[in-house]
Amino acid sequence: MKKHIVVIAGDGIGQEVTAVGKQVLNRIAEKFGHEFTYDEALIGHVAIEATGNPLPAETIAKSKASDAILFGAVGHPKYDNDPSAKVRPEQGLLGIRKALGLYANLRPIKLFDELLQASSIKPEFLKGADILFFRELTGDVYFGERGRKDEGSTAYDTMIYSRYEVERIAVKAFEAAMTRRKKVCSVDKANVLESSRLWREVVQEVAKRYPDVEVEHQFIDAAAMLLIKDPRRFDVVVTGNLFGDILTDEASQIAGSMGMLASASVGDSTGLYEPIHGSAHDITGKGVANPLASVLSAALMLDISFGLKEEAEAVVNAVDQVLKAGYRTRDIADSNTPADKVLGTQAMGEQLLACL
Amino acid sequence: MKKHIVVIAGDGIGQEVTAVGKQVLNRIAEKFGHEFTYDEALIGHVAIEATGNPLPAETIAKSKASDAILFGAVGHPKYDNDPSAKVRPEQGLLGIRKALGLYANLRPIKLFDELLQASSIKPEFLKGADILFFRELTGDVYFGERGRKDEGSTAYDTMIYSRYEVERIAVKAFEAAMTRRKKVCSVDKANVLESSRLWREVVQEVAKRYPDVEVEHQFIDAAAMLLIKDPRRFDVVVTGNLFGDILTDEASQIAGSMGMLASASVGDSTGLYEPIHGSAHDITGKGVANPLASVLSAALMLDISFGLKEEAEAVVNAVDQVLKAGYRTRDIADSNTPADKVLGTQAMGEQLLACL
Ligand SMILES: [Mg+2]
Ligand SMILES: [Mg+2]
Repeated sequence: MKKHIVVIAGDGIGQEVTAVGKQVLNRIAEKFGHEFTYDEALIGHVAIEATGNPLPAETIAKSKASDAILFGAVGHPKYDNDPSAKVRPEQGLLGIRKALGLYANLRPIKLFDELLQASSIKPEFLKGADILFFRELTGDVYFGERGRKDEGSTAYDTMIYSRYEVERIAVKAFEAAMTRRKKVCSVDKANVLESSRLWREVVQEVAKRYPDVEVEHQFIDAAAMLLIKDPRRFDVVVTGNLFGDILTDEASQIAGSMGMLASASVGDSTGLYEPIHGSAHDITGKGVANPLASVLSAALMLDISFGLKEEAEAVVNAVDQVLKAGYRTRDIADSNTPADKVLGTQAMGEQLLACL
Repeated sequence: MKKHIVVIAGDGIGQEVTAVGKQVLNRIAEKFGHEFTYDEALIGHVAIEATGNPLPAETIAKSKASDAILFGAVGHPKYDNDPSAKVRPEQGLLGIRKALGLYANLRPIKLFDELLQASSIKPEFLKGADILFFRELTGDVYFGERGRKDEGSTAYDTMIYSRYEVERIAVKAFEAAMTRRKKVCSVDKANVLESSRLWREVVQEVAKRYPDVEVEHQFIDAAAMLLIKDPRRFDVVVTGNLFGDILTDEASQIAGSMGMLASASVGDSTGLYEPIHGSAHDITGKGVANPLASVLSAALMLDISFGLKEEAEAVVNAVDQVLKAGYRTRDIADSNTPADKVLGTQAMGEQLLACL
């Protein structure tokens, strides 16, 4: 299989971790007889520094022409202290999502046995948990009309969804469930919200096309509770932009470490694959960043954009093997980790390649 | 101190648990030299059966004339299967909140050492956790304009807050923090929502009046994560109606059991004190309901409505003592609980009274 991948490393540790992600993709290509070609493009702070624009037109053009995007991170501390800055690194990420029509954010929460202890949740509640979140990205209260009235003393936002927005992500969620444990949990607040009642209606309609998938509907407050009480009850979870924002962050804590979590943003064309950790400027350039989330993002790319299930599994298994061999980056090491097993970014990459 | 209390037991186990709550209040009155007088009033399904109205005018009148309300539960399974029913038990609770202007829901999450094991979260993360949530009750997306447009294919809800609504609950939260560990965490989504930016502005203004209180602002997604990662970092948490709905349910799982959680709904007059567990018709009339949440609701009443701190503490200590003595109701018993320590509602009440 021939595929063209754009690497958009972005800011901070983005450079270091995508370098390892790319090495793993190359090894997979070699081992399974594929041909992956690469291009690079700028985004975020590095793009602002080079061009004045967090999302240069060239980056959009290269992305549209590619089969998939391996994404690093955006962000720079200098903007955090200046909320008034009009040009910001994060605009690069929002802009590329919009330019590519990426309406679904996929976040798998799969726990590696070796890291079960890292969470504040008891391992016996976590063992075997394997959840795939679908968070809607283009609608909801993030994009509805907002403003002030009554001379500024009242502020409002509009939570809004249209049928087609719900339908297209529901279809993606049910399709994914068919390849997994065939369960979909749709999360809304339909006992109160009209937008949630529409959400639930459309999900129920889509569900009829997938009679083999078991569907349940949970209210967001109950879901936030059940995610801690019994994470293993969930397979695919599909929800709106706001509730998805909340639940996926909560779920990242179930996994114990942000350093291991990958995500995919997909729509009707090129998909974008990125770790959920940010640019982490405090450790940038020190060679200690955990590359496993970028590697697992590459595995998601193989699976979702290229349909290469076996190759994706090989990557996940390699991650499992290096963890079983006791290797850790600093962020996932604990007091039981021997000093010689604590690896830097590149050394962890080499252990991974040795398992592939 | 002379106080007049209306007991609104309501539906299901409400009758059984408020009976114990009242016994405890009586013992406190006796022991500390107060005079508590009582009245009773109907609400919910029992009110519908007796009068056709889930909130009879007499109930409102008695409540307004009282110093505090000891509330049980509302709800009946017969309505769950009939979503079209126009007259519903829950209307009683919403109606009385409105009639009394109860705009703040207080939910303390305090873990008894003996029950630390009941949560899915590791006890070492929970020990000492003591959080008081303030959830706004009368505004937000629950009460904004909602509807459909584009021939029903688009649905919207309006998230809305006015300054006075934020200010009055912020003041309550800061006042409470002054009597506790002097920390307030305000939760919003000010990086996206205009209503959250107003929320944050007003909380920052109120904060200036309480220079001794340490304030932090968290986004709802981060808060949902931190609540699991490090529950002990929180003292008072104040947030809007929707985010409060989500966080308090999530926090109830931290506590391991709904059967132990009390809440207070307060405004500018009579406060209402209720367990967060519902009417629990599956165990109604069996004498096995856990009365401790009603007893802890009575303790909240003593503290918040009557300012009787020492008396409130005596009740909480009595609960602690019966738990330390090994007594459990069925819902909080586990495989290590000897059969003779598993008590019914009334027997648990007697053990409590023996500790007061
Ligand atoms: Mg988030
Ligand atoms: Mg709730």
